[in-house]
Amino acid sequence: MALEFYHNPQSRAAMTHWLLEEIGCEYTIKPVAYDDGSMRSPEFLAINPMGKIPAIRDGETIVTESTAIAIYLADKYKTPHDLAPAIDDPRRGEYLRWIAFQAGAIDPAMMQASTKVDIPRQSAGWGNVELVMDVLDTRLAEASPYLLGEWFTAADVLVGGTLGWAVQFGLFEMRPGFENYLKAVQSRPAFQKVFAG
Amino acid sequence: MALEFYHNPQSRAAMTHWLLEEIGCEYTIKPVAYDDGSMRSPEFLAINPMGKIPAIRDGETIVTESTAIAIYLADKYKTPHDLAPAIDDPRRGEYLRWIAFQAGAIDPAMMQASTKVDIPRQSAGWGNVELVMDVLDTRLAEASPYLLGEWFTAADVLVGGTLGWAVQFGLFEMRPGFENYLKAVQSRPAFQKVFAG
Ligand SMILES: N[C@@H](CCC(=O)N[C@@H](CS)C(=O)NCC(=O)O)C(=O)O
Ligand SMILES: N[C@@H](CCC(=O)N[C@@H](CS)C(=O)NCC(=O)O)C(=O)O
Repeated sequence: MALEFYHNPQSRAAMTHWLLEEIGCEYTIKPVAYDDGSMRSPEFLAINPMGKIPAIRDGETIVTESTAIAIYLADKYKTPHDLAPAIDDPRRGEYLRWIAFQAGAIDPAMMQASTKVDIPRQSAGWGNVELVMDVLDTRLAEASPYLLGEWFTAADVLVGGTLGWAVQFGLFEMRPGFENYLKAVQSRPAFQKVFAG
Repeated sequence: MALEFYHNPQSRAAMTHWLLEEIGCEYTIKPVAYDDGSMRSPEFLAINPMGKIPAIRDGETIVTESTAIAIYLADKYKTPHDLAPAIDDPRRGEYLRWIAFQAGAIDPAMMQASTKVDIPRQSAGWGNVELVMDVLDTRLAEASPYLLGEWFTAADVLVGGTLGWAVQFGLFEMRPGFENYLKAVQSRPAFQKVFAG
């Protein structure tokens, strides 16, 4: 049975969609609307009790949370396209680090930029907005065109997807390094297919 | 060369410490103090440009972010203690889901409980504090003593460690299900060794 993907295009699930296209595995879209109660239906809450998308079902396995879904899919489906260093690959640590940086630093920094909530740098897991932008910018000056150099990985989907929104919504400033990186990831055929359609 | 662990006991790094003890692999502690400039030294910033602990170095691989470190270690070091379902294990999805729930839901919900910042449930990645407590509570009523039943995994270190703080600091209310779970994880010898010392 093909993988089932619980989706709404106006959401973070768009990154999962992009990822599925990059990997090239087969999947069926199960649309979940915001306004007709489907996010809170008993059927959907059995998939994700948070009532949130994205979620996937792969046989008996259900996965929620963009981070978990990305790691799960990229580790398991390595053909036709391999988007993740294997467990014994020395680049595995770098890969996981940037995946975790999206949920642990970029996403909360966006939230801070939009709510203006004040938290001391030392206790905020992401430090602050400026720090997150600087650390990402420095990485992108060292590694190009992607976070792991020539190897496009699932980390680029999460980091590139979130950075694109952060800049588009004016939460992060545009910087030359961000612009180059966004050009590289957004020109990929899988991105074009999902976001231009 | 043994794994190097950049650590300060008054921090999230305590969870990584507990995890290392659960796995039972060899490691050397590299203390990083808050008040003598070591968090911002060029040597440490080369390890983690965020200037934050925890971080680990494993040969040439450096890993930062608690989530990434946990996934990395539990996948790679499966002896003497196996704390992670393998990539082809049907329980892999569940495991990753709860790992990601810590960084994507529990941690930001704690932050929201402490700052009282108001964000609509639909756009906050974690929904809200009540929802996060309810979803975790429901899971703990279904699976016991641990998140994956009898199998104690790295997800329990992250979720159990963070839940322990959330309750201790009064950010989450104590509930019977939380109490049982915290008792189970906190009575483990590795936890006792790290936190009782
Ligand atoms: N931490 C989750 C966040 C998911 C999330 O917040 N999804 C939003 C759309 S971007 C949603 O489904 N909102 C609907 C709702 O909460 O009712 C992830 O990364 O997957
Ligand atoms: N998202 C990071 C957060 C790490 C973090 O915020 N560590 C704090 C201690 S709990 C720290 O090192 N603060 C020192 C500083 O920022 O100067 C993770 O999960 O590892």
